[in-house]
Amino acid sequence: MQFTAKDIALMLKGTVEGDLLAAVDQLAKIEEAGNGSLSFLANPKYEQYLYTTNASIVIINNDQHLAQPVKATIIRVDNAYSAFTLLLEKYNTIKLHKSGIEQPSFIHPSAKVGDNAYIGAFAYISQDVTLGDNCKIYPNCYIADNVKLGNNVTLFPGVTVYFDCVIGNNAIIHSGAVIGSDGFGFAPNPDGSYNKIAQIGNVIIENDVEIGSNATIDRATMGSTVIRAGVKIDNLVQIAHNVEVGANTVIAAQSGVSGSVKIGERVMMGGQAGIAGHLNIADGSQLNAQTGINSSIKEPNKKWGGSPYQAYQDYLRAQVNIRKLPDLEKRVRELENIITELKKDVH
Amino acid sequence: MQFTAKDIALMLKGTVEGDLLAAVDQLAKIEEAGNGSLSFLANPKYEQYLYTTNASIVIINNDQHLAQPVKATIIRVDNAYSAFTLLLEKYNTIKLHKSGIEQPSFIHPSAKVGDNAYIGAFAYISQDVTLGDNCKIYPNCYIADNVKLGNNVTLFPGVTVYFDCVIGNNAIIHSGAVIGSDGFGFAPNPDGSYNKIAQIGNVIIENDVEIGSNATIDRATMGSTVIRAGVKIDNLVQIAHNVEVGANTVIAAQSGVSGSVKIGERVMMGGQAGIAGHLNIADGSQLNAQTGINSSIKEPNKKWGGSPYQAYQDYLRAQVNIRKLPDLEKRVRELENIITELKKDVH
Amino acid sequence: MQFTAKDIALMLKGTVEGDLLAAVDQLAKIEEAGNGSLSFLANPKYEQYLYTTNASIVIINNDQHLAQPVKATIIRVDNAYSAFTLLLEKYNTIKLHKSGIEQPSFIHPSAKVGDNAYIGAFAYISQDVTLGDNCKIYPNCYIADNVKLGNNVTLFPGVTVYFDCVIGNNAIIHSGAVIGSDGFGFAPNPDGSYNKIAQIGNVIIENDVEIGSNATIDRATMGSTVIRAGVKIDNLVQIAHNVEVGANTVIAAQSGVSGSVKIGERVMMGGQAGIAGHLNIADGSQLNAQTGINSSIKEPNKKWGGSPYQAYQDYLRAQVNIRKLPDLEKRVRELENIITELKKDVH
Repeated sequence: MQFTAKDIALMLKGTVEGDLLAAVDQLAKIEEAGNGSLSFLANPKYEQYLYTTNASIVIINNDQHLAQPVKATIIRVDNAYSAFTLLLEKYNTIKLHKSGIEQPSFIHPSAKVGDNAYIGAFAYISQDVTLGDNCKIYPNCYIADNVKLGNNVTLFPGVTVYFDCVIGNNAIIHSGAVIGSDGFGFAPNPDGSYNKIAQIGNVIIENDVEIGSNATIDRATMGSTVIRAGVKIDNLVQIAHNVEVGANTVIAAQSGVSGSVKIGERVMMGGQAGIAGHLNIADGSQLNAQTGINSSIKEPNKKWGGSPYQAYQDYLRAQVNIRKLPDLEKRVRELENIITELKKDVH
Repeated sequence: MQFTAKDIALMLKGTVEGDLLAAVDQLAKIEEAGNGSLSFLANPKYEQYLYTTNASIVIINNDQHLAQPVKATIIRVDNAYSAFTLLLEKYNTIKLHKSGIEQPSFIHPSAKVGDNAYIGAFAYISQDVTLGDNCKIYPNCYIADNVKLGNNVTLFPGVTVYFDCVIGNNAIIHSGAVIGSDGFGFAPNPDGSYNKIAQIGNVIIENDVEIGSNATIDRATMGSTVIRAGVKIDNLVQIAHNVEVGANTVIAAQSGVSGSVKIGERVMMGGQAGIAGHLNIADGSQLNAQTGINSSIKEPNKKWGGSPYQAYQDYLRAQVNIRKLPDLEKRVRELENIITELKKDVH
Repeated sequence: MQFTAKDIALMLKGTVEGDLLAAVDQLAKIEEAGNGSLSFLANPKYEQYLYTTNASIVIINNDQHLAQPVKATIIRVDNAYSAFTLLLEKYNTIKLHKSGIEQPSFIHPSAKVGDNAYIGAFAYISQDVTLGDNCKIYPNCYIADNVKLGNNVTLFPGVTVYFDCVIGNNAIIHSGAVIGSDGFGFAPNPDGSYNKIAQIGNVIIENDVEIGSNATIDRATMGSTVIRAGVKIDNLVQIAHNVEVGANTVIAAQSGVSGSVKIGERVMMGGQAGIAGHLNIADGSQLNAQTGINSSIKEPNKKWGGSPYQAYQDYLRAQVNIRKLPDLEKRVRELENIITELKKDVH
């Protein structure tokens, strides 16, 4: 797909300086852009790139001063960063445009599929499933009995949603994610073996949630595991049974949340962090990567680190102190030597 | 599905107090239960919920005393908890009831499929595969050449089992789990590159094992990676080549076990714990979450924590000591000052 | 498949001592081998196994001295280890031999499939995809629009490759791996919610790369996430957007690499290690298991451990010092007591 400076300026309500017919077919960073690329400059700090870039078109702010001649065609807009972001989205929308129902796919006669759906080949839609409008179910996805999806939901290839789960509007779920598998619940027998505790709850995912590749979210034993609106979950994250994740919380890759944890709103979990079972995490908490949380966090909006965790500043200080231990030991040894001498002198 | 108090009492051999025709269609915790829900009270500590619950039916122990009137219909049984667990299981069995062979699926003519199988659409059963009776192979599962499954095995959607692997009776394997992929074995070349070492062993999973979503269990280089009877493995766990996991061991989410490790029986691994290669872990060991095991554990039935690991009590004490380091440094500084003064006094 | 000593000697250019018609149908370690097994002895240290093994055929070095009679048929070669490795590979090649295009599969008319391909049932090859020669695409794989695969690429069942990604020759990608899912990029709004930043880059995987089960490699926001030639990535590893992994680097299971990290060549990452965003890791660095890297590593070929990381020797020493803390505290207490006494003496 090729677009001219004229096309793009029209779309962004910008003004062109240079060749109206300059054409681009890809988007790139200004310092990496080649011929045929569209780029942008938002931060005046990087102005020099404007004079050296090989991009064919560059979007800049209306108030950007040009100190030297620019080879590229310029499009001026109110906010170059927002304008470029808008183009990224449009580009992606075109790239990801899919529609229609491919064969062979499996759609149970009782399932309700909304308008303008994409159902890929080898996708499986079970009994009593409801899909809203504009849903995209890529190939090899499995949606079990009685699942409900809102509007504009995208399941990339190979997503599994177990029975009775509910997924809100605008959800994006990446390949291999598993929603609603059994919680890890077993009752010990006297002989050391375990009986499985049936897991009959579900997972509820509210609107505007994104879930990464191969992430796993277990169903509740009874009731619901709940992912509130606007939550963003990265690849390979584990959310156990009966967890509640508060609105707009962000969880980085490979983090794990144990059973019955309640995470507040706007929490940020770094990668490979873990939270032990049945704890509460206050709103706005920030957990450093690899943090281990073994007790509830009650004070909101604080940063934490270490395993087991401490206030982030204390954690940093503890690390410094650990590194100074050989020095401290030496000081104690010297004191011991001096004392030995002193005692001789005194007695 | 609706059930009446009379139906349920018959099933549980209980006695009804109240409306024999009270009907329920779901199971819920007593404090969350609404109209149409069945709940239970086992622990007398929570007796007050009995008088406030909106559940339509509540199962209680035969010896439960009622201090106030109860709105719900009551079913009395010997053990309310066991009775409720039984209902959970029955509920789940009904929910997960699937049978027959859906089309299109791929079943090699040489494969042997036992009685009463469910083979979902887009499932793939390769050459010389043997499935026992009552197996459920959900859609998008792949079972490679020469794999043997026992009776009552459930593979949820998207499970992959590589060639030659053996899975015992009653196994439950959740979506996206991969059984028998190649062990991570490479021989270094002088130029820094690696040659792959062919991985020709298999994975043997004994009876009564459950494996979580997106867990990975690698085949042995030669011989077998072995998961003994009754083992329970949570989501996103990694079991490397040639590992043996002892009977009734439980491994929580995101834990990793390196190559050729031998884990004893009844071991409990917390989440995100790791074990380095070629180690032995004694029976009944308990590893705290995020523990890092870098040497064999010889003493059975002990609890361990930290990375690198220590006895759990030592680990806790070390954490306290680390937190007291600033205080210790201050005490040393004071001693140094006193000594300086003392030396003046003495000399 | 059965092979005789004569067949095998011919293949390996070796000489037979014993029964030319001795037949084997499996490969095994010499100490575990049974009747019908082929084994090898390369290390003279284990010579005693030669006299006790139940293997039907054993491959040994030309210069191996036999001190006692050997029951098994012997095949002598220049290098027994290399010869056995060759057999492992041949065995594996036979085991994994698949060819042809199975039905139902989905191959877009615009896709180009090279010679001698295997395309399994329920595999999906999208628009404008190019596959080189000798590619094996197992069932339930999904290859999105405009993806390019080199020659001899194997995708085991259930691999997903998102649009525009490029995979070099001889790549082996295990089940459930996801290549090219969206980077984890969101722009915060004043109300605490996030806007998704469209991820329009791709993943480029060079030649001779192996990627483990359920590993995830995210596409770049713009530009490319790059996995250089000869890299080996284990199961459940996370590689974030815009990362570059240098040639012949090896990454063990469950490790995570954050966005825009640049890893050098011949780096070795132990299991469950993590690297924070935007850092550089020098060539030849060795990261212990569970290491946490929070600043760039500039010095090449060094070993590191701990979270946050230190030079490996310092990390080990710090662990010793932490364990000695109770002792250090006791020494300080004793000094305090002595000083108190001394002060009495002096004043």
